[in-house]
Amino acid sequence: MVNKQQLSDYVYNIVASLYAAGVKKVVVSPGSRSTPLAYGFASTKEFDMYRQVDERSAAFLALGLAKESAEPVVLVCTSGTAAANYFPAIVEAYYARLPLIVLTADRPHELREVGAPQAIAQASLYGHHVKWALDLPIPDDAQVTLPFVERHIARAVAVATQAPFGPVQVNVPFREPLLIEFTKQLPARTFTQHFGAEVRPAKAACVFLKETIQATKQGFIIAGEMAQNTHTQAMWDFVRQAKWPVLVESLSHMRTNIPDDCLPYVVEQYDAILKNDAFQAHMQPQTVIRFGAQPVSKPLMQFLTAVKPANYIVIDEDPKFRDSLHVATHHIEAAIGQWITTLDVQATAEQQHYTILWQRANTIAARHRTAYIAEQSDEGAMAGVLFKHLPEHSDLVAGSSMPIRDVDTFFEKTTRDIRIFCNRGTNGIDGVVSTAFGLQYASKRDTYLLIGDLSFLHDSNGLIASRYQPSDLTIVVMNNDGGGIFSYLAQSTVEEHYEQLFGTPTALGFEHLAAMYDAEYANVTTKEAFETVLETPKNKAIRIIEVMTDRAENVATHRALWQAINEELDTLWQA
Amino acid sequence: MVNKQQLSDYVYNIVASLYAAGVKKVVVSPGSRSTPLAYGFASTKEFDMYRQVDERSAAFLALGLAKESAEPVVLVCTSGTAAANYFPAIVEAYYARLPLIVLTADRPHELREVGAPQAIAQASLYGHHVKWALDLPIPDDAQVTLPFVERHIARAVAVATQAPFGPVQVNVPFREPLLIEFTKQLPARTFTQHFGAEVRPAKAACVFLKETIQATKQGFIIAGEMAQNTHTQAMWDFVRQAKWPVLVESLSHMRTNIPDDCLPYVVEQYDAILKNDAFQAHMQPQTVIRFGAQPVSKPLMQFLTAVKPANYIVIDEDPKFRDSLHVATHHIEAAIGQWITTLDVQATAEQQHYTILWQRANTIAARHRTAYIAEQSDEGAMAGVLFKHLPEHSDLVAGSSMPIRDVDTFFEKTTRDIRIFCNRGTNGIDGVVSTAFGLQYASKRDTYLLIGDLSFLHDSNGLIASRYQPSDLTIVVMNNDGGGIFSYLAQSTVEEHYEQLFGTPTALGFEHLAAMYDAEYANVTTKEAFETVLETPKNKAIRIIEVMTDRAENVATHRALWQAINEELDTLWQA
Repeated sequence: MVNKQQLSDYVYNIVASLYAAGVKKVVVSPGSRSTPLAYGFASTKEFDMYRQVDERSAAFLALGLAKESAEPVVLVCTSGTAAANYFPAIVEAYYARLPLIVLTADRPHELREVGAPQAIAQASLYGHHVKWALDLPIPDDAQVTLPFVERHIARAVAVATQAPFGPVQVNVPFREPLLIEFTKQLPARTFTQHFGAEVRPAKAACVFLKETIQATKQGFIIAGEMAQNTHTQAMWDFVRQAKWPVLVESLSHMRTNIPDDCLPYVVEQYDAILKNDAFQAHMQPQTVIRFGAQPVSKPLMQFLTAVKPANYIVIDEDPKFRDSLHVATHHIEAAIGQWITTLDVQATAEQQHYTILWQRANTIAARHRTAYIAEQSDEGAMAGVLFKHLPEHSDLVAGSSMPIRDVDTFFEKTTRDIRIFCNRGTNGIDGVVSTAFGLQYASKRDTYLLIGDLSFLHDSNGLIASRYQPSDLTIVVMNNDGGGIFSYLAQSTVEEHYEQLFGTPTALGFEHLAAMYDAEYANVTTKEAFETVLETPKNKAIRIIEVMTDRAENVATHRALWQAINEELDTLWQA
Repeated sequence: MVNKQQLSDYVYNIVASLYAAGVKKVVVSPGSRSTPLAYGFASTKEFDMYRQVDERSAAFLALGLAKESAEPVVLVCTSGTAAANYFPAIVEAYYARLPLIVLTADRPHELREVGAPQAIAQASLYGHHVKWALDLPIPDDAQVTLPFVERHIARAVAVATQAPFGPVQVNVPFREPLLIEFTKQLPARTFTQHFGAEVRPAKAACVFLKETIQATKQGFIIAGEMAQNTHTQAMWDFVRQAKWPVLVESLSHMRTNIPDDCLPYVVEQYDAILKNDAFQAHMQPQTVIRFGAQPVSKPLMQFLTAVKPANYIVIDEDPKFRDSLHVATHHIEAAIGQWITTLDVQATAEQQHYTILWQRANTIAARHRTAYIAEQSDEGAMAGVLFKHLPEHSDLVAGSSMPIRDVDTFFEKTTRDIRIFCNRGTNGIDGVVSTAFGLQYASKRDTYLLIGDLSFLHDSNGLIASRYQPSDLTIVVMNNDGGGIFSYLAQSTVEEHYEQLFGTPTALGFEHLAAMYDAEYANVTTKEAFETVLETPKNKAIRIIEVMTDRAENVATHRALWQAINEELDTLWQA
């Protein structure tokens, strides 16, 4: 039988090793088997502890914390389906490259697969969606146990924070009794420090990249989603040197906080611009350099697929580089870092002309977008109103379906300090509310969540977090009563079954939910009302603003905007 | 490129094969990639279709449907984290032995692991928690494709419904475009029928079992949780022959619907009885025969562990028989069936005396329980009031934590037609609301859910089902503001951290949630008020009765009841 001192030594060894490896944040869900870990983290007072009863939401909360800081965040849950509830967020973390350390308390070996309660096959529960899964031994008195566990925890965090980042599972079995000694003092360790590596490009890659840029007459940069730990300043220095247009995905952290002198090179209207056939025909790139993930924009993807640039260079730290179009011609295995500024590239004369055409097109599309926001009152215009009202030093979290597309279309490039986040690892509509809470808890900034009604409903349990932690979140729910994005797809032409299987209207409003969680609530149907609410100071922890929109109207007005831009872009070639 | 006819043939082949294999119920969540399947099931009109936007709840809804009928139920979702949200219910289905056929729509191979949206490593997503995972090919024009798919679907359902039942994943990749032809006519098939096997005991096992019973002077039967397809009548015939006491777990389907002549042999108070030391000392069994899963009762488990009966015979259709106590001496691999009635056993004279002592003890404990329900007003007494008011031909679904333990303690054995259900595969507090809806949709019976506040909150999204399907459910929420079960454990002695990490009070009530879902709502604090509400006819699809209780009081009164029973049981040996 494990004695209390052995159990305590084992648990504090884990806790101390995590702390030494840089873990500062822990999200705990209640449960019995995880008692030693929960009490271990709580008693030392060294960690920011967050709580959430619903493990699915807890894991997305941890994901939000990790997304904000790009630092490893620990999850703790009990054995059984509690751990299975983490799965959606773990999958998202894997593809979004976020370092979660998932501590799943487990039953000991003699209670596995023998019909014991809350005992499942936990040791490799998340399959291909963690970078590593380790199954620790039961605490015992062997001399080797603590030195092994100490180093294995160091390895776990090192794997999670090796580029590309990702989740790691540490399965921790405990035998009863589960109570530990309490201490505020973490034990000394014998393993001192892990020095992580940099993922730098090969010298040949740098030579190739510089030569290619110098020889290019028509080229652009794509800045896809990048993590918070990205060297954005290096990216701006690179843009300053190259003077190429840089197409900024809204999640690149390069659509906002733009240095004044870089603003002209930033193209954020590419989605609208690339719907124009003449533009596509005249502006075929020789070279495209992509940093970060693939952007969400369908026209951009279609453009690249049609053109197949002679050089489509993907810079990605993962040997499994991302390119679902199968048009990449080169992959440079590297993280974004200072090295890109040392290339010392400069644009050709032809390239400068090409850049100017992108700038003109962007100006045209931006003007239409601004007018649209002023004149229309559909979902896009409402989103535009929200963006205009975001205060300096605030964060915007967007739902993964229509909201992020509305951000992509309607969020104007800016020098202001606003950060934009979204779960685009796998684009799920799940866990978005919890992600927003996690981001806000980590940043303490003004945070706004723009979300559709189904996605909000899906993670309405995310609100439980506000019962345990001081919270500060404005939630703007675009309520079009159902799945808005499907209206843009061919499925919507099947009248007999469409609403039942895709529109799936619930006819639910969120006023009662707001009351349940003691949140401020406003329901708006006009832009003016929306602006009034946004200009009124928030006076509770959570504010829910329900914006009533219409799925059919949204489709019609969006299409009209694209048509207007399309027509004016045609004039670019008539001059 | 796949043409529309090929896609349609492929999809209807899957749909027709599932129908032929006995699938009648399909639960669909909205999504784009799953469009061909959703439209395929919908257009033929052969299936009962159920909808739920939250895939976690959808899977538990399907689990409830499968639990009621023990027939295979199909789940359909889109690609990405949608499928990951199924995981908790799939884990539960695996251990609860329920036949779910999980159709996960997937992206084609060229969009997997290349950074495409909503593309995850789906082909074996659920690891060890499905009986089989198959990854179908993309529809094509090869002659072999449809005959293969037809037989593979037949195999999938055959595996799911082979004892022990369990979930199977069928991953179905689709390339765009995703629209199919519509038809009401299922295509002809070339594979006609699967004949499943029976899991019957070896002849030597029957001989051993009969001889052991005939030689036993002190023996009892344990009836653990059994599936709805169990031959309960055969069990009763066996009890009639043996005249052994049968300890009926509340989920055995043998605590209710008891034939009059079998009633005396049924012991349902074993949990209270076995807390008595003298009873344990006098009543050590030579032989225990267990059918079904391990019961929830801790005293029973402790009794068996202490006694280590000379014969502890586990009858389980799975070679991985359930015995987390490691006291089983024999395993008979067999499903419960007519064969147990052909043993033609009869009790020894000593055994008859032993049976009588169990009956006396049961009568004593039952009397105390009845008095307790009349006199107290804690959670147990409130539960007792509910059980008394359950109408004939109704179903009771219990939460997996305190509620099922209250059922075990306070639900009196009865000849009435009431069925009791609970998710005890892994005992999660998740998905319970959805399970109850699934059971009710399948049975159309009066259904009552008894659930704690955290568990209700965890699956509050289960209520979304009522926006899509006609529903009829009474939900009794025992609101003790937090995790009640932990109060019985050693963790509760750590005052500094206990409430924060285990009690986890949310201070949430459910009146607003009821309003959100247009449910009837009542809040009761006394037994009288509770009885009044239960006696008032329900007039909306959902009725939520929130019963306010106190965690500390519950512990104290439960302990007093056990003490009273304990004292009177001591008198059994004084006569």
